[in-house]
Amino acid sequence: MKKPTISDIAKIAGVSKTTVSLVLNNRNINVSEKTRSKIIEISNELNYIPNGIARSLSTSRTETIGIILPDIVNPFFSEIARAIEDTAGKLNYNVILCNSDSNNIKEEKYTKLLISKLVAGTIFISGGGSRNSIDFFKKNNIPVVFVDRYADPLKDFSSVFCSNEEGIFEAIKYLYDKGKRNIGFVNGSMKLETSKLRLKAFDKISKQLDIYSKSLIYNSIYSVEGGLIGTENLLNSNPKIDAILYSSDVMAFGGIKTIKRKNLKIPEDISVIGYDDISFCEYIEPELTTIRQPIYEMGEQACKLLIDIIDGKTINKKIEFKPKLILRGTA
Amino acid sequence: MKKPTISDIAKIAGVSKTTVSLVLNNRNINVSEKTRSKIIEISNELNYIPNGIARSLSTSRTETIGIILPDIVNPFFSEIARAIEDTAGKLNYNVILCNSDSNNIKEEKYTKLLISKLVAGTIFISGGGSRNSIDFFKKNNIPVVFVDRYADPLKDFSSVFCSNEEGIFEAIKYLYDKGKRNIGFVNGSMKLETSKLRLKAFDKISKQLDIYSKSLIYNSIYSVEGGLIGTENLLNSNPKIDAILYSSDVMAFGGIKTIKRKNLKIPEDISVIGYDDISFCEYIEPELTTIRQPIYEMGEQACKLLIDIIDGKTINKKIEFKPKLILRGTA
Repeated sequence: MKKPTISDIAKIAGVSKTTVSLVLNNRNINVSEKTRSKIIEISNELNYIPNGIARSLSTSRTETIGIILPDIVNPFFSEIARAIEDTAGKLNYNVILCNSDSNNIKEEKYTKLLISKLVAGTIFISGGGSRNSIDFFKKNNIPVVFVDRYADPLKDFSSVFCSNEEGIFEAIKYLYDKGKRNIGFVNGSMKLETSKLRLKAFDKISKQLDIYSKSLIYNSIYSVEGGLIGTENLLNSNPKIDAILYSSDVMAFGGIKTIKRKNLKIPEDISVIGYDDISFCEYIEPELTTIRQPIYEMGEQACKLLIDIIDGKTINKKIEFKPKLILRGTA
Repeated sequence: MKKPTISDIAKIAGVSKTTVSLVLNNRNINVSEKTRSKIIEISNELNYIPNGIARSLSTSRTETIGIILPDIVNPFFSEIARAIEDTAGKLNYNVILCNSDSNNIKEEKYTKLLISKLVAGTIFISGGGSRNSIDFFKKNNIPVVFVDRYADPLKDFSSVFCSNEEGIFEAIKYLYDKGKRNIGFVNGSMKLETSKLRLKAFDKISKQLDIYSKSLIYNSIYSVEGGLIGTENLLNSNPKIDAILYSSDVMAFGGIKTIKRKNLKIPEDISVIGYDDISFCEYIEPELTTIRQPIYEMGEQACKLLIDIIDGKTINKKIEFKPKLILRGTA
């Protein structure tokens, strides 16, 4: 069986292909109501779907966008991807998913693939150092919107972020007000601009509050294992530690495991604060206190911004959200 | 700036478009090594990417497949999607992501969109009752592989599943051997064939072991809330309950919350077993005992099977995996 075409409908209806095409596209054409209904009926009967690729080629534009993200299994990214796909779907775009594992070679492979598929634009959650991929998009005139993770140089690109400084400040101030003076920080990979900004903010606020100690900082990776290892290290080198801030919720889950295995109580012995507010924060008991990034809104706004750029409605725009401390059971 | 084309390269190199095209496609052509390198150099300089859509139209085939799944935020589906995308990427296919929320109207909308984009095939995790979408794919001659969730009628389609009966049997037998005699079952939506098969298996094994009671079964939905509500109901109606099997890990997380909030101990007072073995099982403490479905392998095999069908290497195939009880801290 072949995909049904306009020719098939024309043949069965006994009219020309042009007539079928005009009727199905709701264009002005002088045909009887009977012929019109007959054409529509046959097209339904055959489950006819117009060829969107043919149109794409003539307009040099597809209603397709790409998302390059590190790993869809990480709930932070799956929540952003969901928001992007929802928003794209409402605007009649569809979304090609690319998992880069924050690897520049994979990013570049996907970049070329997306360009060859004539995507109208791309949302890019960079693994850091994505210079080549960024060049490819630029030289091929494909609009890109960066989300969450910065890429250098960003000035030519649109982006959607949530203030890292404010998030770190809010968490540390809360813990300080609760009487905590030995606050550890398990941060993500220093390859990423986001981690650098958060570390800078942590240094700044700790020094302001006069509780700074270099030994309270551990640069790990954004995963459960990263949280496990970071916590193990901080607990061993700082017996007086009374709170730990994690640079992601997923890391905080790893941290909680380590703390519980040492028979320390959360939040009595050690308070824990995560970062992101993925939906899993509410799946555990006690639920995770965290710095909320408005993940869904970030994905939604990134997609709207990208499609506005594609439609020529705007050119280069930065959108910054504010984070918010969400109090639950761990701090 | 426009996307660079073959014409741009030809102009700069001072050769014909045909020469550029033949050189870049590694075809036999009698040109000097100097001209060949010059053409390749210019194409790199311009970050030229061939237009894959033009080729798709002439071959009526894209190297793109669709995935229709309920919700990418659900870790079971994000893990399957990751496996599918990894496998597709290795075979030079890319993947369009569609979230249906198990809603037939959304499924149908995405079905039409995928067909219009000339996808070479689709992997479908049905929300149940997807008759219309299935018809559209069939009449448009688009191969479909079903994964995890059955759709009726399936006989014409290829599918990848994990035995539901064996999974339920293994869990219940384990609990029975541990001395549990009041084993509850929080199942998913009865709209889904998977839930029906699991309920049937639960009934069968409970009756065989002579521990069956209708009041120990609660049909809920596949979510944390579904697990919370199901557990609340079972605990209230069965004070002697000593173990609960959940039809998904995510439901089990909800159940654990309810059990902990009632100050009951896991596994001492109530043993808990989940279903799926998503990576989050290891994020909580104690880690979740569960029935493992080989999620990654299921996605991988589904993708390979689909591409084999696209390539005409096979036609209709059912692949069934075996589940496995993974012992951790909750049972």
